[in-house]
Amino acid sequence: MDNRPIGFFDSGVGGITSIPHIMRLMPDERIIFFGDTARTPYGSKSEDTIRQFAAQIGDFLVSKGVKMIVIACNTVSATCLSMLRERFPGIPVIGVISPTAREISKLCGREDRIGILATRATVRSGAYEKKILEFSPGLKLFSRECPAFVPLIEEGIIDNEIMDLTVKYYLDDFVRENDINTLVLGCTHYPLIAGNIRRLYPDIKIISSSKEVATAVQMELESMDMLAEEGAGEGVENVFYASDLSESFVNMIERILKADAADLDIHFKNLDI
Amino acid sequence: MDNRPIGFFDSGVGGITSIPHIMRLMPDERIIFFGDTARTPYGSKSEDTIRQFAAQIGDFLVSKGVKMIVIACNTVSATCLSMLRERFPGIPVIGVISPTAREISKLCGREDRIGILATRATVRSGAYEKKILEFSPGLKLFSRECPAFVPLIEEGIIDNEIMDLTVKYYLDDFVRENDINTLVLGCTHYPLIAGNIRRLYPDIKIISSSKEVATAVQMELESMDMLAEEGAGEGVENVFYASDLSESFVNMIERILKADAADLDIHFKNLDI
Repeated sequence: MDNRPIGFFDSGVGGITSIPHIMRLMPDERIIFFGDTARTPYGSKSEDTIRQFAAQIGDFLVSKGVKMIVIACNTVSATCLSMLRERFPGIPVIGVISPTAREISKLCGREDRIGILATRATVRSGAYEKKILEFSPGLKLFSRECPAFVPLIEEGIIDNEIMDLTVKYYLDDFVRENDINTLVLGCTHYPLIAGNIRRLYPDIKIISSSKEVATAVQMELESMDMLAEEGAGEGVENVFYASDLSESFVNMIERILKADAADLDIHFKNLDI
Repeated sequence: MDNRPIGFFDSGVGGITSIPHIMRLMPDERIIFFGDTARTPYGSKSEDTIRQFAAQIGDFLVSKGVKMIVIACNTVSATCLSMLRERFPGIPVIGVISPTAREISKLCGREDRIGILATRATVRSGAYEKKILEFSPGLKLFSRECPAFVPLIEEGIIDNEIMDLTVKYYLDDFVRENDINTLVLGCTHYPLIAGNIRRLYPDIKIISSSKEVATAVQMELESMDMLAEEGAGEGVENVFYASDLSESFVNMIERILKADAADLDIHFKNLDI
């Protein structure tokens, strides 16, 4: 057993969408989350820049004594997983892509037409296709870069016409031309617009990387006998760090966790200076 | 006379929209530009974070031997002008808001209904209203936060339906309800969507902060006898630094300067590490 917290990070608020899944599966675990809200979005930044940011954040989480690092961000998973594993050899590092690819290979067959929605950096890395085809050769995969989603979500532009129109802009032709029946939310921000996508494309099955990574964390901790003891989490709070504590961040964390920010342990942590 | 370069900076690519105006007015001047593309957008970040970033960038430009610092960003001008003036007492620091407010007070009268478009941080600072009313008490001013514009522009989402719809989303009711006849582009990114705005609202007069700051730079350099000598710029290139050299940045700089990136002196400069 291991009662140390799990370290989670994301380019912004998106990775927080995994946390309710973690708490449901493993109520005894506690999380230290870092959201790089001062430098979000990452998805259209260069790989070198993303790698530097990820290394800084990994160092910070390790300095906080985490037992595991979860890259709760597809862009960073696609570009930095092996770098982080090399940098922290004593700590398991889990990305979101492999668990999601595994779930896709379980849920989907050759009759399915699977659309992967992700940031530019994730799509260009080809990491999803590669991983999915490793598990299930022959699946029919189509990818769509959606570079406007993360900046709009980080601005809190979700429940309105702009987001609906942006979803249609990226998906209408993509879904129709490729006859898509399954969409993969290949970015941990996208569960925040799953409602828009479901409303606009009610017949399409949705697979979310935010949910799948939680299952992978549980499996990994179990297999390494590193789960927290029963009751270990009682009276201990999850801790949230952000490199910018803007109003948008606080609004979003309240929205995702369905909690009042005043009841959450939220801190400012600038990695730059 | 003073042949040292002028330092320009912005949260991202927006501030580059001032540079063609500078080159037209003062062809002998040379510019060192820094765009904080790794941490863009600033507009919804907190003032403390924006101030830290601005101080770092100011230090960098001063280390490059600039004769003047131009804050080619309304958000930073609204929140950091006095901080930067205190930090660099030997160097003139010019923001975009005061020059734009002066131009508004020249061009507009009490019969006009003036809409100021800006980021959340700029609007909330009240800097435009305060400055405009200092020059021209009694002008009719209305402000509109447009938080989605900068992230969309930085993603290069300009010549398409998403941007047109976003413009209409922010402006349709605002213009109609307030009977606006003049729009102030209170963000140096917004000239990049001036075409969309003009097409959608052809009868509205547009005043651009990117243009006005160039005139202010010229006046200030003249008054301090700090203009470059005739011919000083020959064979010397403007230099562009960005904290992330992504494809989006390169595309945007080519678009704004109507030049091939291969012919421009573009460098990566990370202020974080």
